[in-house]
Amino acid sequence: MADRLHLLLLAALIVFTASSAPSKSSTSSFFSLSNGSPRFPRYSVWHRTSTQPLRRDQPEYQYETRYFSQRLDHFSFADLPTFSQRYLINFDHWLGPARLGPIFLYCGNEGDIEWFATNSGFMWEIAPKFGALLVFPEHRYYGESMPFGGREEAYKNASTLSYLTTEQALADFAVFITDLKRNLSAESCPVVLFGGSYGGMLAAWMRLKYPHIAIGALASSAPILQFEDIVPPETFYDIVSNDFRRESTSCFNTIKESWDAITEEGQKENGLQRLTKTFHFCRELKSTDDLADWLSSAYSYLAMVDYPYPANFMMPMPGHPIREVCRRVDESHDGTSILDRIFAGVSVYYNYTGNVGCFKLDDDPHGLDGWDFQACTEMVMPMSSSKENSMFPTYDFNYSSYKEECWDMFRVIPRPRWITTEFGGHGIETILKMFGSNIIFSNGLLDPWSGGSILKNISETIVALVTKEGAHHLDLRPSTPEDPQWLVEQREAEIRVIQGWINSYRKEKISTFSM
Amino acid sequence: MADRLHLLLLAALIVFTASSAPSKSSTSSFFSLSNGSPRFPRYSVWHRTSTQPLRRDQPEYQYETRYFSQRLDHFSFADLPTFSQRYLINFDHWLGPARLGPIFLYCGNEGDIEWFATNSGFMWEIAPKFGALLVFPEHRYYGESMPFGGREEAYKNASTLSYLTTEQALADFAVFITDLKRNLSAESCPVVLFGGSYGGMLAAWMRLKYPHIAIGALASSAPILQFEDIVPPETFYDIVSNDFRRESTSCFNTIKESWDAITEEGQKENGLQRLTKTFHFCRELKSTDDLADWLSSAYSYLAMVDYPYPANFMMPMPGHPIREVCRRVDESHDGTSILDRIFAGVSVYYNYTGNVGCFKLDDDPHGLDGWDFQACTEMVMPMSSSKENSMFPTYDFNYSSYKEECWDMFRVIPRPRWITTEFGGHGIETILKMFGSNIIFSNGLLDPWSGGSILKNISETIVALVTKEGAHHLDLRPSTPEDPQWLVEQREAEIRVIQGWINSYRKEKISTFSM
Repeated sequence: MADRLHLLLLAALIVFTASSAPSKSSTSSFFSLSNGSPRFPRYSVWHRTSTQPLRRDQPEYQYETRYFSQRLDHFSFADLPTFSQRYLINFDHWLGPARLGPIFLYCGNEGDIEWFATNSGFMWEIAPKFGALLVFPEHRYYGESMPFGGREEAYKNASTLSYLTTEQALADFAVFITDLKRNLSAESCPVVLFGGSYGGMLAAWMRLKYPHIAIGALASSAPILQFEDIVPPETFYDIVSNDFRRESTSCFNTIKESWDAITEEGQKENGLQRLTKTFHFCRELKSTDDLADWLSSAYSYLAMVDYPYPANFMMPMPGHPIREVCRRVDESHDGTSILDRIFAGVSVYYNYTGNVGCFKLDDDPHGLDGWDFQACTEMVMPMSSSKENSMFPTYDFNYSSYKEECWDMFRVIPRPRWITTEFGGHGIETILKMFGSNIIFSNGLLDPWSGGSILKNISETIVALVTKEGAHHLDLRPSTPEDPQWLVEQREAEIRVIQGWINSYRKEKISTFSM
Repeated sequence: MADRLHLLLLAALIVFTASSAPSKSSTSSFFSLSNGSPRFPRYSVWHRTSTQPLRRDQPEYQYETRYFSQRLDHFSFADLPTFSQRYLINFDHWLGPARLGPIFLYCGNEGDIEWFATNSGFMWEIAPKFGALLVFPEHRYYGESMPFGGREEAYKNASTLSYLTTEQALADFAVFITDLKRNLSAESCPVVLFGGSYGGMLAAWMRLKYPHIAIGALASSAPILQFEDIVPPETFYDIVSNDFRRESTSCFNTIKESWDAITEEGQKENGLQRLTKTFHFCRELKSTDDLADWLSSAYSYLAMVDYPYPANFMMPMPGHPIREVCRRVDESHDGTSILDRIFAGVSVYYNYTGNVGCFKLDDDPHGLDGWDFQACTEMVMPMSSSKENSMFPTYDFNYSSYKEECWDMFRVIPRPRWITTEFGGHGIETILKMFGSNIIFSNGLLDPWSGGSILKNISETIVALVTKEGAHHLDLRPSTPEDPQWLVEQREAEIRVIQGWINSYRKEKISTFSM
């Protein structure tokens, strides 16, 4: 396998887009458009439009849907159209302004806000206890919050997309919160931010950039250090690989060996045809790279959603899904080929229900993808795959190719150093210790994104809540009867810390009033 | 006197532009362009171009002039041209990276950076003691740092001016510092920010927005609270008025009475002609408003530069210039008319050297002014003049007129609430206490801008250094043999605090290294 850039970048994206997996064409572009279609299925509800029903395995949450007019560029006075930012709001439990009722705000990330709202059960569950208002503003350029009147116009080209940046999104939140509080006469009410994944990064960065807007943030699975050379670029794939190795060394080894087996098979006469059959694709494979991408994508997702109980976060999956994958890979009876064993394993991810007859690789192109644009502009997260510790094909991150492919794709030049200039990153622990406060960085160590996050307490008010057996922002999900004790305890700790922020704030407020 | 909006807005501008005084036309626009010429002389070196020699009463400072390529919009990926940001740099005393030599950076504000550099003697004087690198980046859209190739193009219209915002300027500094440090292999060297007036606001806001970029800021005369209703809108003019009253109640009363006397005289036959003669204007006055503006402007400046020793900050002036104004106003022998006494007083400001034969009101229009644009977009500082405490004509700030006049002038709509959304302001003391650190707010209470600044210690690391007899960022000026003891002590305190920041930082660095 030659250039695996697309594969490795994929990992940087999947957590966020959940299956907008970049693909690779013969010209080695890692994005889908260079050959007119993406290589990976887009299963994710993250890409659902509002007209599609949400999955019904979550509790039913009630909210009002409202809209707020936002500037397209907060930081210039260029004559640009405004756009309508959607937000969901629930007043059921709010104590109101007189009692300094808190406002819990989810920092919408790259997807439909309804999906995030209904997947953040933790907020819904603790709202009654805190007497909190719940509000979920959507991230610009996602869901219904489209500039220029609609998705097609907003995603037309680099020029219309150019205001899809993190700083603009944070300013959206700041303006939105300020206005909401004023309209509710709730200027004195404390705001607590929540966010998972990229949303967690937004929540943490809000605390750094707008400390006057919110008193604290629960940043779950927020890889704010996954930039430049702050963490080794191998981190992500090493963690995915370790998640498999901890379940079974032979499973790890089988996967590691499978890439060569796939290439070898593909080079034989009718090899692609046989691979198509082995892996149950609906249409014939065009290259073994497509297959490798499809498999790698599944492994990375599996690591993220390696939850201790059955869940339907991205796909319906058993509890400890990697354990199940490895059981199938390992337990296939003797004589089963390595490729059959790989297929048996990956079916846990792609077809756990057993309802899928054949797999499609390009079933929903959708055109330009928002996160792809963000990855090609600000969110440059270098990823490599090491020869030693990774079960994935070896790859060294190459910024020149990355840049070139972004140019081909969007006609933009990435700014790989901008995020750390704007938000910090190098020496972040010193900075957070000296200048930050009231952030919880929660992480599960099975989550490959945990490697780019904050895993130890920085100060009394910047705390890390790390669970050895946790995965991608598990803490934000609704509680279930199957929750292990460590998860129950993690959420209890979060509640205690948040309560502490609110108590301190109220105490400070009251002492200021009485002065 | 009818609409005094122009006059009152003037005060919001003069500190920064030093004489880009907005004017009033018959259509009541407060800016100069509505009638093709400004009403006030533009004496200030703040508007000098680099081809004009700087005043030679300052010590000679040596620096290299360099240029740095900046994005026009840091917060979007719109396809815009870059521009060249000028900066001045001096390495003479720098300890270098190995010894963690500090970098002292002046946050360039709305004018030619050479003028700020040569008027910030304090930085030059303390650099040897600290082994500091000195660097003075220029603010975009001022001096030589012009987007679109030059001043004429940059100031062509609202569209070309639209990137003249505070957030873009702060991002310029952040990108510039990051790049400079990398080029000097000085990533570990602590940066300390300095700034006076709007530059002081930039320095303080840099600490809030980019705590990872600089370890502390000396924000001198930085009215970060002069927005919305955070301080009473009468504050500025009340302080100016008090500066006069403390010298002489009769002087205060004479000035307060003079406005009616001027109006009355102007309404008489040949009144404007007689006023022209009394006040030595080169050309005949067109309205008494012009004269009132000319006088008000002088009084406000006088309050800002009410220094205890002779200085040539904006104009050559004696020590305690208000005392001298009032001496002349009060001491005119009996029988001298009120208008003659007013003229005698104001001549301290406009003609202390006695070299000016007659005064011009419109000698250097220059077209659109950068600070006017900033005042019409983000920097909306409401100012009123009260009937009771002010010696100025009564005026109530009227946002609707303000907005209308900004539209007429620039075709922009101000965002009066944006600054506090972006940087905080309401309840700023709580915010600074909880979330900020390492800022010195220095102020002199004679300075009318002190009313919108931070005048008390907020925490151990956010300190206010207030001098009763100080005026507008006097502490940043070079020391002189006439410096009173309180000024010497203020500067010593600043040095101690800055030394403390650097010591803590080095200690932290070393303990991190040795971990």
